[in-house]
Amino acid sequence: MFIRNCWYVAAWQEELTSQPLARTILAEPIVLYRTASGQVSALEDRCVHRSLPLSMGRVCGEHLVCAYHGLSYDHAGRCVHIPAQDVIPKNAQIRRYPVVEKDNVIWIWMGDSTRADETSVPDYPWHSDPGWAHKKSYRHIAAYYELIHDNLIDLSHVGWVHEKTIGGTPEAHSRAEVKVVRSEDQVSVRRWMRDSVPPPTYVKAVDFKGNIDRWMEIRFRPGLVSIYVGANEAGKGVDEDHYRNTFGARIFNGVTPETEHSTHYFWTAAHNFKVDQPAATEALFKEVYATFEEDKMVLESQHSRMRDLPGAPTIDLISDAGGNQARRLVKEKIEEELRHVPVPA
Amino acid sequence: MFIRNCWYVAAWQEELTSQPLARTILAEPIVLYRTASGQVSALEDRCVHRSLPLSMGRVCGEHLVCAYHGLSYDHAGRCVHIPAQDVIPKNAQIRRYPVVEKDNVIWIWMGDSTRADETSVPDYPWHSDPGWAHKKSYRHIAAYYELIHDNLIDLSHVGWVHEKTIGGTPEAHSRAEVKVVRSEDQVSVRRWMRDSVPPPTYVKAVDFKGNIDRWMEIRFRPGLVSIYVGANEAGKGVDEDHYRNTFGARIFNGVTPETEHSTHYFWTAAHNFKVDQPAATEALFKEVYATFEEDKMVLESQHSRMRDLPGAPTIDLISDAGGNQARRLVKEKIEEELRHVPVPA
Amino acid sequence: MFIRNCWYVAAWQEELTSQPLARTILAEPIVLYRTASGQVSALEDRCVHRSLPLSMGRVCGEHLVCAYHGLSYDHAGRCVHIPAQDVIPKNAQIRRYPVVEKDNVIWIWMGDSTRADETSVPDYPWHSDPGWAHKKSYRHIAAYYELIHDNLIDLSHVGWVHEKTIGGTPEAHSRAEVKVVRSEDQVSVRRWMRDSVPPPTYVKAVDFKGNIDRWMEIRFRPGLVSIYVGANEAGKGVDEDHYRNTFGARIFNGVTPETEHSTHYFWTAAHNFKVDQPAATEALFKEVYATFEEDKMVLESQHSRMRDLPGAPTIDLISDAGGNQARRLVKEKIEEELRHVPVPA
Repeated sequence: MFIRNCWYVAAWQEELTSQPLARTILAEPIVLYRTASGQVSALEDRCVHRSLPLSMGRVCGEHLVCAYHGLSYDHAGRCVHIPAQDVIPKNAQIRRYPVVEKDNVIWIWMGDSTRADETSVPDYPWHSDPGWAHKKSYRHIAAYYELIHDNLIDLSHVGWVHEKTIGGTPEAHSRAEVKVVRSEDQVSVRRWMRDSVPPPTYVKAVDFKGNIDRWMEIRFRPGLVSIYVGANEAGKGVDEDHYRNTFGARIFNGVTPETEHSTHYFWTAAHNFKVDQPAATEALFKEVYATFEEDKMVLESQHSRMRDLPGAPTIDLISDAGGNQARRLVKEKIEEELRHVPVPA
Repeated sequence: MFIRNCWYVAAWQEELTSQPLARTILAEPIVLYRTASGQVSALEDRCVHRSLPLSMGRVCGEHLVCAYHGLSYDHAGRCVHIPAQDVIPKNAQIRRYPVVEKDNVIWIWMGDSTRADETSVPDYPWHSDPGWAHKKSYRHIAAYYELIHDNLIDLSHVGWVHEKTIGGTPEAHSRAEVKVVRSEDQVSVRRWMRDSVPPPTYVKAVDFKGNIDRWMEIRFRPGLVSIYVGANEAGKGVDEDHYRNTFGARIFNGVTPETEHSTHYFWTAAHNFKVDQPAATEALFKEVYATFEEDKMVLESQHSRMRDLPGAPTIDLISDAGGNQARRLVKEKIEEELRHVPVPA
Repeated sequence: MFIRNCWYVAAWQEELTSQPLARTILAEPIVLYRTASGQVSALEDRCVHRSLPLSMGRVCGEHLVCAYHGLSYDHAGRCVHIPAQDVIPKNAQIRRYPVVEKDNVIWIWMGDSTRADETSVPDYPWHSDPGWAHKKSYRHIAAYYELIHDNLIDLSHVGWVHEKTIGGTPEAHSRAEVKVVRSEDQVSVRRWMRDSVPPPTYVKAVDFKGNIDRWMEIRFRPGLVSIYVGANEAGKGVDEDHYRNTFGARIFNGVTPETEHSTHYFWTAAHNFKVDQPAATEALFKEVYATFEEDKMVLESQHSRMRDLPGAPTIDLISDAGGNQARRLVKEKIEEELRHVPVPA
């Protein structure tokens, strides 16, 4: 169902304070918190004594203290203090999860902790690059996470679902030139739409007067779908050499399964134009927000109908190539884990 | 659980517009819509591509278009257009359901479509007969559909549940003369209450001064329970010859299972007195509406208790004769279908 | 799961009127009512005819009458009248439950009625003793009942959960001297905290100036946990001889399982100081109420987390001695019933 040996977005950096945060990830209840020294930790959200969620407790110095009988836990999930009891049972231990704080994101590793390689945490420099401005959001989506992958990877839906925002001409989206490349750990999809009508969002952003050449790069890795889109006046070219210095926006899409039926969706919208104008950041954010609300409605309805009619036959379209590659990658990783990975301690 | 080869009420005629309507019938999600030419269609409410409910889409001309990637479907449930893709897969097909528009009602056939005989759609001329005026309603009932049959067929409950409206004397209802006749496809129940106190609703309608002779005819067919009630001054007789030209009301009761635990209830109240006075129609409607709200509360509480205590022993009363005949008829039809009917395509 | 041969609190005395009361106990829906003669009865909440809850009906004289078709039941659960039908079927009978009205409490026996010994109903004289004043409450707790036992029996949580009300110093609670005594039918726990900081509630009640000696007596029987707490100025002693005439409060805790996942919690707070001052009763009540709201939040979160992670390993602390004895007692009683008790008629 889920890839475990993978870095997922657990939270935005600023969500982590001395007030513990409860979040379910891959169907496991987790408490996230930041201690007095600033260190971020993630533990099983359950006191080993009587199962109260530790997220109801409080941080004291470097420890997390249970709200029921005052048991204290360290970063490793070991119970290190029991009020009025000198001997701490050896099995007074809960699971801890590796976490990394990077690029304003808290990343968590849900699998075998001995394989948690911090150098494999995705880079996302556009959250701190001065050439880009961004704004964050979080949405809870009542849908299976792979439906979100499909949605982000196959942008042929843009003209239908988002005709009022980023759409443009439906058929132009459907007829876009597309190139899908699968490597071991990721799927990249590139799309080009030459000489097409600019969508409302783009016109608002940079005031295009005539038709445009559009390009979209989607990079899927389990846990993160990075999208880089942009446009130029029609005829000016959509090769990398041409578009690197023109109007562009980057969407960070942290896709973290909560349960089999729901997903945490962490996203940011960054742009490389008018970066010193908060109103421009806000305007882009609002457009993307509206777009994602449209997607949320589609995804949740789709998920709900699939639950109503499990196993109903479906067909694939040509435009599903990228999404299907992503599904294959996820399936392979899960199967590999089931073969090789020991049960986490 | 359900009879499939049967015409059920799917909707009121005026509910069907170019805006698709989602409705679950016999636990199957269905989309109902009217195309530009006025034709009504019913399809499986699921795009064959990625399972979005088609009811979120829109009608374009004679086609229904999915809101996610723009696939178009015709009346037969065939996908006839995929944007930017010339070849349509052969299995791009969803189920369609026969529908008939008649007497202001949209009837649907849920079983084997080769057996859907339009001449077997029930007649209900009183929705258009100028000698009668009527008003419509729809209620969602969180109860198993056969509980509604019981309720409509055994009117001995009227004195207890509806004492404030159509009741009259409880014991008079319980002691009514009753005649039950079962044929292959229906059960008819006739009741006569001679020289009884007129209930408040009747007095409001036609201002009876003294006691009355009442009669009630209930005709049960799977999907539709037709009720014809009326009264005359006491002593004037309750034979057909006498009552055809006196005060009468007809209740149309479309009983369409939604799921095992819920039912669509379509009803109209028609009357043959003061037919040119909308206030009389409204007054009767209000009385019947109040009555059915009382029934709804009973039915839902009953259903809920039966789910709490499945298999608890029960007893039958003499007055259950008609309801039990209806249950037997439903059981026979279901068993017959399980024996003979092929799985619908 | 539940002890059946045991008196549970079904309701407060004043809840029982001629208006029937519906309450689920040990997962069985029950109707409680008081007839014209003042007698209290408890029956299965289901008409034997068509399963409508009898709690929707009405009391007529000594009978309970179903709201659907008017069947009447006596105190023994026998159907004694069917409108318009002379013969009453022999199996027109529903289950009745022994009930006893005592000390303002309606007690119910859920097991084998031949073993319902009214002399074994718990005494609680402080609901009528003029030396004590009290106020009642009822709370619905979405938690397994044994979690409430644990909470009431092991008061080492008081310093953590209730620091703002009855807490005082957390470590003092954890280091309290504790004596646990198990007999066949009950577990008693006594705790003493000498020379400790008075908690806010106690200061409000009797204005202690310095440290206090506190004592707490908890007596657990299935269905009822009686708590007697009090305090004296530090050094004045906490032996029975000393404290009987000082500041004391008694908490009645009727713990009645509703389902496997919820519990009826009937409690009163009584006090032996300022018994003629309603404001004192109210002030104590408010403090205890606030305390129990804190417990409710803990209990429900704990229960919910245990459902999320069934079978997760736990540890016991020294302070669990009393609670664990109570769990053992409950387990023994249930096992004994499964061995010896015939299925109730």
